[in-house]
Amino acid sequence: MAAKPRQGAQKELVSTLTGRRYPFSRIQEFTDDGESLEVHTGDLANASIRSGKHLWERFADFMPFENLDTDISLGEGQTALLHAGPELAAFTGVERLLLKNETQNPTWSFKDRGSLTCIAMAREMGEDVTATISTGNMGNSIAAYAAKAGMRAIVFVPEFTPSEKVMAMGIHGASVLKITGPDYAQIKKELLDMAGEISLRLVSGNGPIRVEGYKMIAFELFEQMEGEVPDYIAVPTSACGHTRGIFKGYRELKEAGLIHKIPKMIVVQARNNSPIVSAIKQGKRQVIPFTGFHTVAEAITSGNPMGGDEIIDKAARFGWLAEDVTEEEILDSQRRLAGAGYFVEPAAATSLAAIRKLRGDGKLEREASVVMMLTGSGLKDMSVMHHHHADVRETDVAGAGQAVRAMLDG
Amino acid sequence: MAAKPRQGAQKELVSTLTGRRYPFSRIQEFTDDGESLEVHTGDLANASIRSGKHLWERFADFMPFENLDTDISLGEGQTALLHAGPELAAFTGVERLLLKNETQNPTWSFKDRGSLTCIAMAREMGEDVTATISTGNMGNSIAAYAAKAGMRAIVFVPEFTPSEKVMAMGIHGASVLKITGPDYAQIKKELLDMAGEISLRLVSGNGPIRVEGYKMIAFELFEQMEGEVPDYIAVPTSACGHTRGIFKGYRELKEAGLIHKIPKMIVVQARNNSPIVSAIKQGKRQVIPFTGFHTVAEAITSGNPMGGDEIIDKAARFGWLAEDVTEEEILDSQRRLAGAGYFVEPAAATSLAAIRKLRGDGKLEREASVVMMLTGSGLKDMSVMHHHHADVRETDVAGAGQAVRAMLDG
Repeated sequence: MAAKPRQGAQKELVSTLTGRRYPFSRIQEFTDDGESLEVHTGDLANASIRSGKHLWERFADFMPFENLDTDISLGEGQTALLHAGPELAAFTGVERLLLKNETQNPTWSFKDRGSLTCIAMAREMGEDVTATISTGNMGNSIAAYAAKAGMRAIVFVPEFTPSEKVMAMGIHGASVLKITGPDYAQIKKELLDMAGEISLRLVSGNGPIRVEGYKMIAFELFEQMEGEVPDYIAVPTSACGHTRGIFKGYRELKEAGLIHKIPKMIVVQARNNSPIVSAIKQGKRQVIPFTGFHTVAEAITSGNPMGGDEIIDKAARFGWLAEDVTEEEILDSQRRLAGAGYFVEPAAATSLAAIRKLRGDGKLEREASVVMMLTGSGLKDMSVMHHHHADVRETDVAGAGQAVRAMLDG
Repeated sequence: MAAKPRQGAQKELVSTLTGRRYPFSRIQEFTDDGESLEVHTGDLANASIRSGKHLWERFADFMPFENLDTDISLGEGQTALLHAGPELAAFTGVERLLLKNETQNPTWSFKDRGSLTCIAMAREMGEDVTATISTGNMGNSIAAYAAKAGMRAIVFVPEFTPSEKVMAMGIHGASVLKITGPDYAQIKKELLDMAGEISLRLVSGNGPIRVEGYKMIAFELFEQMEGEVPDYIAVPTSACGHTRGIFKGYRELKEAGLIHKIPKMIVVQARNNSPIVSAIKQGKRQVIPFTGFHTVAEAITSGNPMGGDEIIDKAARFGWLAEDVTEEEILDSQRRLAGAGYFVEPAAATSLAAIRKLRGDGKLEREASVVMMLTGSGLKDMSVMHHHHADVRETDVAGAGQAVRAMLDG
């Protein structure tokens, strides 16, 4: 099964900062001067929602594919959207707090939506290898989708990556290349150059095709909320692609006349590594690079994200919010979310504390509707569990009844 | 929002082996002599599928609840059903091999569907504590659903349970009680007795209300397959509740006149612990207890499952299939599933090898449609990863291009 785009759509890549246009025939991750690229599929005024079992069939008019083959899907999307419940609403001070549980994707993180489109495009371009740079979620996801499509995957990882994380990519058949060296931001740039030289497709978290995958979150929310548009969407931010994608999806729905307003994004980062949020808060126009930091939010550790300037620009133009959170706030948020039933990785928990702080500062209205993206499963990073306390006791079976009574009393 | 059952439905608990009836007002996990119990909701001839956003709203006529409140849902179900793809079809020799990916549930295992109904019933009964015995998936799931519903959870675990697994339950706010002692099958029985004495609801993997949750898998498959009934459904089997639930769902659909045949179940166990499969293969009528075994399939380690005799009985009456698999076959199946894009825990992989063997023995037809339940995420048990090999190499960034070429050539 495959979805066909509408007739006559002209695809181009456009620099998000300068508006300069690039041919779609040679898809790049960034412009040569490091700007983010965006896919334009032409005028969307006549785009409409079709019938179809899959989200991308229904929204094929918005997608830049000649054929989006269902064979390469691992069943991403259709994740739950739920009211956060009274405790979290009370904690944040936001009454209409909604959780979008992206941990229910096939590799248990939001990355899968972008991997679907990256692998689909690689196939459309006749490629048989896709590479990425990752310490975890992205590598797992690309490895799984490449396996499903029968393609090779290469994952570049920092040398200190734990062997279990390496094996979770390797078991899908991906080749893992550990890159030695201290400056990972610099390594990333050199790897992108190398990939260009040997014509290896190296997908990043902020490439234009990946963004097309994240765009589908907006379409899914549009369906799940029956046409209502949330006031805000909070996204833990590292490479920026996730934030860009969701926002682009809503802008395109508006362009097609399906909605009349667009949400504001809330950019969330760990205070220990807040290259974008610090810039926004200080009124700067450019990323403030972070190096040598540590944060428990391991999934959002780009210290100098390529394309970050454009997110700072958009935040100013569209009145987005931005907040950073401390290590203590992150772990507290992880506990609170688990206490409401959701076990997420620390990076995914950051938004909870951020929303509370923004509400406390009066930047967020009590009656606003806010969607929080739960980006990755708590099982992804068990190394932080020693930060938490649990009620654990020990007894033989004869003492079990008494121990239970003591637990219930205490 | 809540779904109301049809008028006049009379609920009872019925022993699955003797047919003896028990009042619904005092729900037990088993009869006093250890038989499985099943919920009867009266004549289903007039049951019909309603409209509604949630599966349990649409199938409320089949469910034993006065009110099934959507507030306690964590978004379980609506998991992907996908064709396994050409490699796994070729490996098993079964052309219509379908994967039902239960790792996309909120705590990343099939257990969540049963936890929804257990916690819903506890609430309906006015209870504020639910307990369970678990080494992993079940404890995580009950802990999460109790947290969502604002109830207390107590999880009994074996003393050797790794601290990370304990913390993953504890972070939801569950109290964890480690029970010392060597004979875990015996400990389980004593804990059930103790719970009865102090009126503590202790839910097992094979209780009648849990089975009502697993039943919903049949309803979901019925919808996803547009009314078609698969020939076989393969289930990794430990406590038997999962197998019982899916089968009960199909029988009820037939009773309501919505389908005209029912699938045969395939009972799968690790050869190192095959109390049910061994009995079926040897033509015995009773469970053959296993003790002192080790298997990588840690999620299916009931060596003497309560209610197992009834599964053996059903296998004979309904022509079910049964197969056991070796440790090597389990790990090989885990690799093959990951090679097709699905990273599942070893227990979830057992069915793949079992289906291949049953096909090889001519017990399964090439043209049969077979649904494989992928019961739990690979992230649930990273301790087995050292059994696998991955293509991992190391280089500095200057040597990356050459290393990539070597990887692609080799």
